[in-house]
Amino acid sequence: MGKEIDDVTTTRSILRFNGKDFYEQEDDIAVEFPLTVMVDGQEFATMVCTPAELDELVVGFLASEGVIRRFDEIKTLTIDDSKGFAYVELVTKKEMQNHHHSKRFIGSCCGKGRQFYFYNDMKTAKTVMSKTTITGQDCHRLMTLMQESSSHFQQTGGVHNSALCSKEGIIVSRTDIGRHNALDKIFGYCLMNRIPLKDKIIVFSGRISSEVLLKVAKIGVGIVLSKSAPTNLALDLAEELGITAVGFIRGQGFNVYTHHERILGG
Amino acid sequence: MGKEIDDVTTTRSILRFNGKDFYEQEDDIAVEFPLTVMVDGQEFATMVCTPAELDELVVGFLASEGVIRRFDEIKTLTIDDSKGFAYVELVTKKEMQNHHHSKRFIGSCCGKGRQFYFYNDMKTAKTVMSKTTITGQDCHRLMTLMQESSSHFQQTGGVHNSALCSKEGIIVSRTDIGRHNALDKIFGYCLMNRIPLKDKIIVFSGRISSEVLLKVAKIGVGIVLSKSAPTNLALDLAEELGITAVGFIRGQGFNVYTHHERILGG
Repeated sequence: MGKEIDDVTTTRSILRFNGKDFYEQEDDIAVEFPLTVMVDGQEFATMVCTPAELDELVVGFLASEGVIRRFDEIKTLTIDDSKGFAYVELVTKKEMQNHHHSKRFIGSCCGKGRQFYFYNDMKTAKTVMSKTTITGQDCHRLMTLMQESSSHFQQTGGVHNSALCSKEGIIVSRTDIGRHNALDKIFGYCLMNRIPLKDKIIVFSGRISSEVLLKVAKIGVGIVLSKSAPTNLALDLAEELGITAVGFIRGQGFNVYTHHERILGG
Repeated sequence: MGKEIDDVTTTRSILRFNGKDFYEQEDDIAVEFPLTVMVDGQEFATMVCTPAELDELVVGFLASEGVIRRFDEIKTLTIDDSKGFAYVELVTKKEMQNHHHSKRFIGSCCGKGRQFYFYNDMKTAKTVMSKTTITGQDCHRLMTLMQESSSHFQQTGGVHNSALCSKEGIIVSRTDIGRHNALDKIFGYCLMNRIPLKDKIIVFSGRISSEVLLKVAKIGVGIVLSKSAPTNLALDLAEELGITAVGFIRGQGFNVYTHHERILGG
């Protein structure tokens, strides 16, 4: 079983059945890598990810969880990729024991008011006021650019791709086996490089779940484009957080689910 | 924005662009529902799921996390689906504060020995000794049956399907927007109905990630069939846990990745 890891894919010998015969062949397989994030010496979380751009992933994940707001709140970030650990030292120590990591947020009028379900999301996902508009043509063009920029999906059939775009084209694209990791990497990139976000667009290969929508709001982008379908909770959150969700961008058409004022005809 | 929830899908009015014009239409959208599991009065976890067969989901999830082994370890299970809470009372109280829920497992020889990354998985995922064999034809037939049994995917394009099968056909199939939830529901069903598992097969619509593979091992099934690709970590775990992983079941062909002794020619 030969293994040569180039971060994102590896090769394995498999048994292929072609409808008639079995034969051995080499196949490209997506790498899945467990990474444990330690913050000031305490275990914060373990995620399974594609081992590329791990620094961006850690920065984006901590911002997404409300542990940091800016990159300069991190004093040191060391990644030990032989053992799968990231060690983060914050400028100002936080009591991580009391951190509301994945604690349920209970609204005062259950099920009726705001759609948040985690305490941290309520703190970090802000309403997006972006006045950026794009055309239907832009939707198709940016989706095509995102797909062309990601060759790994074709190779292994098992990763999610996301891209941060301006109207003109792709600024950065990231790949991960985890749908939210791809977005956390984009988030980390933006924080590390101080990218202004109000006029940007996120293009995503997978379904728009509530988690994906919340990441888009946390990053601070007003438009999310997807090839796939959204969920109802994602759309409730999109309505509330001021995000334009566009899905099923396939062939000539697409669906605009929320805040259609940002999508112009033609 | 009309909303009528039938558990799995809801309808929303959306703006459709057909390549020429925008027009309003009603669309089926997958429902995504946050469910918080309380065990003996303490918040254990919040998951986002498709709100159908929630009792099976909770039972399967608790078994998967190592909180219970058998259904009769649960004294009461009450689901409040207006608020999204499941209240579980165990026969024997456990100190949930010390529960190793999603704590990293650190092996003695890092990265070399066993592939587990969560402490709970090491406790609950056992090597499967099943002697069941199936043919290539069975692989295709069971995949087709699973796809036919799940109409929601076609409707909303946003859910995962899994089925527990014998060689003869489907015993139970379950749908969820979360890939692991669909398997937890199968697990819960098996525990609640005392289904013998050694001669069974699991058919899954999505990618075989490490998490999916671990669920299959925890359920105790020796063969997993998928339309999609596996990850390398899933295959390392499959090797170790004695599970036959078959992927890319499409057209006439498929790939056997691990333990091919259970797949017979023809």
